[in-house]
Amino acid sequence: MDIIKPRTLSGFMELLPGKQAQFERMLEILRKTYASYGFAALDTPVIEDAQILLAKGGGETEKQIYRFQKGDSDLALRFDLTVPLAKYVALHCNDLAFPFRRYQISKVYRGERAQRGRFREFYQADIDIIGDGKLDVLNEAEIPAIIYKVFQGFGLTRFQIRVNNRKILNGFYAMLELSEKSGEIMRTVDKLDKIGAEKVKAILMDDCALTQAQADEILRFIAITGTNSEVLAALEGYAGRNEIFDLGLAELKAVTANLAAFGVPEANFAVDLTIARGLDYYTGTVYETTLLDHPEIGSVCSGGRYDNLAGYYIEKQLPGVGISIGLTRLFYVLDEQGLLNVDLPSAPCDALVLPMGGEPGPAIALAESLRSAGLRVQLYGEQKKFKQKMAYADKLGVPFAVLLGEDEIAEGVCSVKNMKTGEQSKLTPQQAAEYIRKELAENNGPVILEK
Amino acid sequence: MDIIKPRTLSGFMELLPGKQAQFERMLEILRKTYASYGFAALDTPVIEDAQILLAKGGGETEKQIYRFQKGDSDLALRFDLTVPLAKYVALHCNDLAFPFRRYQISKVYRGERAQRGRFREFYQADIDIIGDGKLDVLNEAEIPAIIYKVFQGFGLTRFQIRVNNRKILNGFYAMLELSEKSGEIMRTVDKLDKIGAEKVKAILMDDCALTQAQADEILRFIAITGTNSEVLAALEGYAGRNEIFDLGLAELKAVTANLAAFGVPEANFAVDLTIARGLDYYTGTVYETTLLDHPEIGSVCSGGRYDNLAGYYIEKQLPGVGISIGLTRLFYVLDEQGLLNVDLPSAPCDALVLPMGGEPGPAIALAESLRSAGLRVQLYGEQKKFKQKMAYADKLGVPFAVLLGEDEIAEGVCSVKNMKTGEQSKLTPQQAAEYIRKELAENNGPVILEK
Repeated sequence: MDIIKPRTLSGFMELLPGKQAQFERMLEILRKTYASYGFAALDTPVIEDAQILLAKGGGETEKQIYRFQKGDSDLALRFDLTVPLAKYVALHCNDLAFPFRRYQISKVYRGERAQRGRFREFYQADIDIIGDGKLDVLNEAEIPAIIYKVFQGFGLTRFQIRVNNRKILNGFYAMLELSEKSGEIMRTVDKLDKIGAEKVKAILMDDCALTQAQADEILRFIAITGTNSEVLAALEGYAGRNEIFDLGLAELKAVTANLAAFGVPEANFAVDLTIARGLDYYTGTVYETTLLDHPEIGSVCSGGRYDNLAGYYIEKQLPGVGISIGLTRLFYVLDEQGLLNVDLPSAPCDALVLPMGGEPGPAIALAESLRSAGLRVQLYGEQKKFKQKMAYADKLGVPFAVLLGEDEIAEGVCSVKNMKTGEQSKLTPQQAAEYIRKELAENNGPVILEK
Repeated sequence: MDIIKPRTLSGFMELLPGKQAQFERMLEILRKTYASYGFAALDTPVIEDAQILLAKGGGETEKQIYRFQKGDSDLALRFDLTVPLAKYVALHCNDLAFPFRRYQISKVYRGERAQRGRFREFYQADIDIIGDGKLDVLNEAEIPAIIYKVFQGFGLTRFQIRVNNRKILNGFYAMLELSEKSGEIMRTVDKLDKIGAEKVKAILMDDCALTQAQADEILRFIAITGTNSEVLAALEGYAGRNEIFDLGLAELKAVTANLAAFGVPEANFAVDLTIARGLDYYTGTVYETTLLDHPEIGSVCSGGRYDNLAGYYIEKQLPGVGISIGLTRLFYVLDEQGLLNVDLPSAPCDALVLPMGGEPGPAIALAESLRSAGLRVQLYGEQKKFKQKMAYADKLGVPFAVLLGEDEIAEGVCSVKNMKTGEQSKLTPQQAAEYIRKELAENNGPVILEK
C-alpha cells in the first residue's frame, strides 16, 4: 500500500491529549460562567450561504473567507460568530424572547497568511445580548463583569478590561467639527499603543488633513488618564457642548458605577479614551482586554454596543451588546509563555486499574465501583509485564494506579499507588475511592499561573 | 439598504434555544460518560488536506465530500472522525501512550442528497481504543458497556446492542469454500432485516452464484437465534472445523461474558449473527444498536474491531476498536417521535431577577448572590411595565421569577415566584437560593422519555 505522509494543515491547532485537557478546562469554565448569567447555548452551522455571510462585504473578509461551490450552491465557512447570530436572530425572531442572550463557543475560519501564532481555524467564545428596539445600558456593564468572572475563573488577576464609549468620541469630534473624519481619526488613534503619539499626530495632519490645533486637541483629549473617577471628572469639563457627547458620558458613568456594583475591582477595569475599536459597527460602549504583563499580545477579548445587529436581513431594529474571546490565540500565547498550570492533572483518568492476571471480572467490578464513586477510571486490559504496565501509567501521567492481584482479590481490597509520592496502601474499593477523591481535591489549582 | 432574506441551508440543523438546551444535555452526558472510562477528549480540525482524507478513496465518499481549493491547497471537510483519528495517531504516535483511548464529539460533513431527516452537517460521538501491535479482547466488551451507560444516562431502557464477530462469519464461509465471495455474501445478508430471507436467498443464488445448498446453509446459519447462551451453544456445533471460526467464537464468548461483568443486562445486548457491518474495515467484533420500539430507524450506534487503523499513513500496525453515535440524527428522530422530555427546564436560567425600579445596585447584588449559590441567574435590566416583565419570564419559560422592589430592599428580602404553581413568598437571598435549588433538584427526570 502507498503511504501518504500524515500532516495537519498549517494554521490549524491540533493538541496532544494533555494540552487538550487544559484547553477543555478553559472551555468548561467559559460554558459554566456564561450559563450562570442566563445565556442560552447556541450552535449554528459552520457552512452558510455565501451571499448571507458576505452581505456586508468588505475587503479583508472577502479575501480571507473559505468560499466554494457544491452542486449549484455558493457556500462559505463562517469567519466569525456575529454574522451567523444576526442571521439566526433575523430568521427566528418570532420564536425568541427579547432581550435574547446567547453564548456560542465555536470554531471560525479565516484563510489568513500563514504566520506563527495566527490561526486559520480558531475558537471564538462569544456572548451577546440582543434587544428588540431598545436595550438598557445595564447590559453594557454586565458584559465586562462576566468577562471579569471568566478571567478570574481561569486564575488570572493581572488583566484589565478597558472601556470607552464611541458616543464620547463622536461627540468630541463633532465639537471640533471633524465628524466626517471621525472614522478615519479613530482608526488612527487606535494605533496609539503601537506607534506612539508623535506618529499618530503626523498621520492626523498628513493623511487626515487636520490642522495642528485640531491634532493637538485630539492628542490632549486621548491623553486624559488617571483613575476612573479622575478620567470621568476630566470628561465633565467637555459636558454641555454636544448632545451625543453628553449621552456617551452618562452611559460611561453608568457602566463604571454598575461594574463596581457587579463586584469588578477598579484594578481590573479602566476607562480608556484611546479605545475605539476599528469597526464602524459599534455605536456606544466599547471594550478591549489586555493582560497587564503581556501588553504585546494586544487585546484578548473585545466587543461593544451596536445599534443594529441584523439590518442586512430584516427591517427590525435589533440593538445589542457583545464581546468575543479569541480563545485559540489566547491559549496559544498562554502556552508559549509557560503560563498554563502543568501541575493540574492532565491524564485522561484519575485512576488506572491494573489487573495482575486471572479473569478480568474482579478488575471490571473494581473499576465500575470506583466510577460510581465519581472517578474517571481506565481499566488496563493488556497482557503485559508489571514493568510495562507501570511504564504505561507513567507515560499517561495518571495520579493513581490501582493494582489488583490474587492476594488483593482474596482479601477484598486493592493496592492504591500514589504515582507522585510512590506510597502504596491496601484499601477496600470504597476507601480507595474516598482516598483518591480527597487527594485530587487538594490538587486543584488555577488553570493559568501568573509569573 | 438591500435586504437579503435570511435562511439556514437545508440539511443543516439549527435549533431554537429550548431544543438546544436538550441537545446540550445529551452532549454533557456523552462527555461525562466517555471521560469516566478514561478517554481523552480530542479536537481535530474540520478542514484537512484532501489527499489525506481521501487516502482510501471510494465512491460515496468522493461524491459526498466537501472539497475545495484555497490558494494552492486542495482542502476538504472531514466526513467522519475515524480518518482524522488515523491521521492524528499516525502523526503523533511517538507522543501517545498505547492503548490510546480518545473520544471526540464533533461535526462531520457529507453533501448528501437533501432529504427529510438526513443531515449534511451532523455530530458524531465517537470512542476508540487503539493498541500498538496488539489489543486485548477485553476492550471489545468495554466499548458496548460504555454505550450501555450512555443510553442509560439518556433515560433509555428499550434498546439493544447487537454483537457479532466477523471472524465467525469469515470462518463459516471458509467452511463452505465461499471465502472469496464472503464480502459479497455479507453485504447481502446485512439486508436481511430490510428485505427478508426469501429475497436474500434469491440474491445469493442469482447474483452471487451460490448453489441452493450453500444458500440454505447460510440462511440456516444466520437463523440461529435465541438467548445469548443458546446462540453460543449452537455455534459450538460448528467448532473445530476452521481456525478463524474458532478464534471468533472464543472472542464472542469472551465479549459476552465480560459484558455481563460490566453490568450490562442480557435484555440490552444480543449475539446476532446477521450483523456484519458493510465495511471491509472491521475484522472481529462488530456492533449495531437499535431502539426496540423504533426498529425503522435502523442502527443508532455502530462500530467494531479493526486490525489496522492507519495503514494509509504509517507502517506501524495499529489495531483498535471503536463505536460511533450519529447524534444529530438520533436527536432528530427522538424529537420527531416526541420522546424528548419537555418537562425538563429548557430556559437559559433558573431564576430571572426582576428589579421593580430604582437604582440597579441591589438587584445586581441579589443576582450575584444567587449565582454564588450555584444558580444560573439572569438579571432583567429593561425599563418595562410589570406585565411585560412577567410576559418575558413566561416566554423564556423560567422556573422562578425573583422580584425586588423598594419594600423588599428595605426588608432585606426578595419575592420568589414559582412560575409553575404561581406561589410567591418573601425570602432572604440565601433562603431563596436554597428554595430554588431544592425545587429544581426535584424536577430532574431523564432526557428521553420512553412511551
